[in-house]
Amino acid sequence: MTQGKFIVIEGMEGAGKSTAIAVVEAQLNKHGITFDKTREPGGTPMAESMRELVKSVDISETVTQETELMLMYASRSQLLANKIKPSLAQGRWVLGDRHDLSSQAYQGGGRQISADIMNTMADITLKGFKPDLTLYLDVTPEIGLARARGRGELDRIEQEDLSFFERVRARYQAIAEQDDSIHLIDATQSIEAVHEQIIDVVEAFIARHD
Amino acid sequence: MTQGKFIVIEGMEGAGKSTAIAVVEAQLNKHGITFDKTREPGGTPMAESMRELVKSVDISETVTQETELMLMYASRSQLLANKIKPSLAQGRWVLGDRHDLSSQAYQGGGRQISADIMNTMADITLKGFKPDLTLYLDVTPEIGLARARGRGELDRIEQEDLSFFERVRARYQAIAEQDDSIHLIDATQSIEAVHEQIIDVVEAFIARHD
Repeated sequence: MTQGKFIVIEGMEGAGKSTAIAVVEAQLNKHGITFDKTREPGGTPMAESMRELVKSVDISETVTQETELMLMYASRSQLLANKIKPSLAQGRWVLGDRHDLSSQAYQGGGRQISADIMNTMADITLKGFKPDLTLYLDVTPEIGLARARGRGELDRIEQEDLSFFERVRARYQAIAEQDDSIHLIDATQSIEAVHEQIIDVVEAFIARHD
Repeated sequence: MTQGKFIVIEGMEGAGKSTAIAVVEAQLNKHGITFDKTREPGGTPMAESMRELVKSVDISETVTQETELMLMYASRSQLLANKIKPSLAQGRWVLGDRHDLSSQAYQGGGRQISADIMNTMADITLKGFKPDLTLYLDVTPEIGLARARGRGELDRIEQEDLSFFERVRARYQAIAEQDDSIHLIDATQSIEAVHEQIIDVVEAFIARHD
């Protein structure tokens, strides 16, 4: 059986990930491709517990950046072993709401954790595994945060200051530039233009791999 | 103000950690030393949630050894930042039920995670911090597990096979031999003999540091 493909949607709060996911879902359905959806952090019962711990604003103790980093990777390890890899092995595709690139951007870029530590955590957890296609929706922190605030409460990490999100975006952009499997999409364009670009990239990917 | 001291009790299930802790507590009290008690994994609300996740036998998904490792270190990071370091800085002593040596023995020895990964996790989390005194209670897995089983249900990690615990013990012994701050106590002796040895070691430590 052919291994399934792993497509990931990435970007900051308010970049439009949810509608992008809906667009890709519709395309996969149109092509009759069976797929599973995941989100990170989370996606298994144990990983969802970690998501709650790492994002909650009701934690009454200091959350160290090392704890945040390890919970993100422990969550990813559970999702990989229990969902992503089994689905791909069965020939199903996987459509992910965030994956490792988020840790690289938020903990590596935003929190300024060293490249050494980031690479080690990725090596331990992923052992070379990576998505086949990533769509990175690029927005300014100002636009993204304004949209995210409009939706309601921000989680613990979303409450960081603007300079944090500027570092997150810079890291997203820098990695996207170096990796051909990551497509940067200007998410400040009109919704129609963004969706058209997503459809073009995904159609080309499906044409190569289906 | 003088920094407090961190004393840790280590050993396998059924080695007699709880009674050893009671003996050390009585000694600290006798000398009028104020102290806090901790346990690992756990010891803060967030770390206790991680303890539950990592030890539960009711988890219906595969728990990867990477997840186990990261939850142990995330728990340790929370405890260090929120309890151990603040207590020591206030001049209070800390009496710990397990610390990093447990991860070295169980995840490094038992799970056979590489020295590279173990050292990196310790460096990230501890940044050179270590206990001032560790009492390692050494028992054979057969004796320890028989005692632990007599107490009731075993947790997920305690349900490993005998060869796992033989590797745990071998790692405990190997590290104890190399580190002068770790005292190996033969916990297969009579309770009286074990307690006498504990008291001797701790009295000598207090005499040097109080």
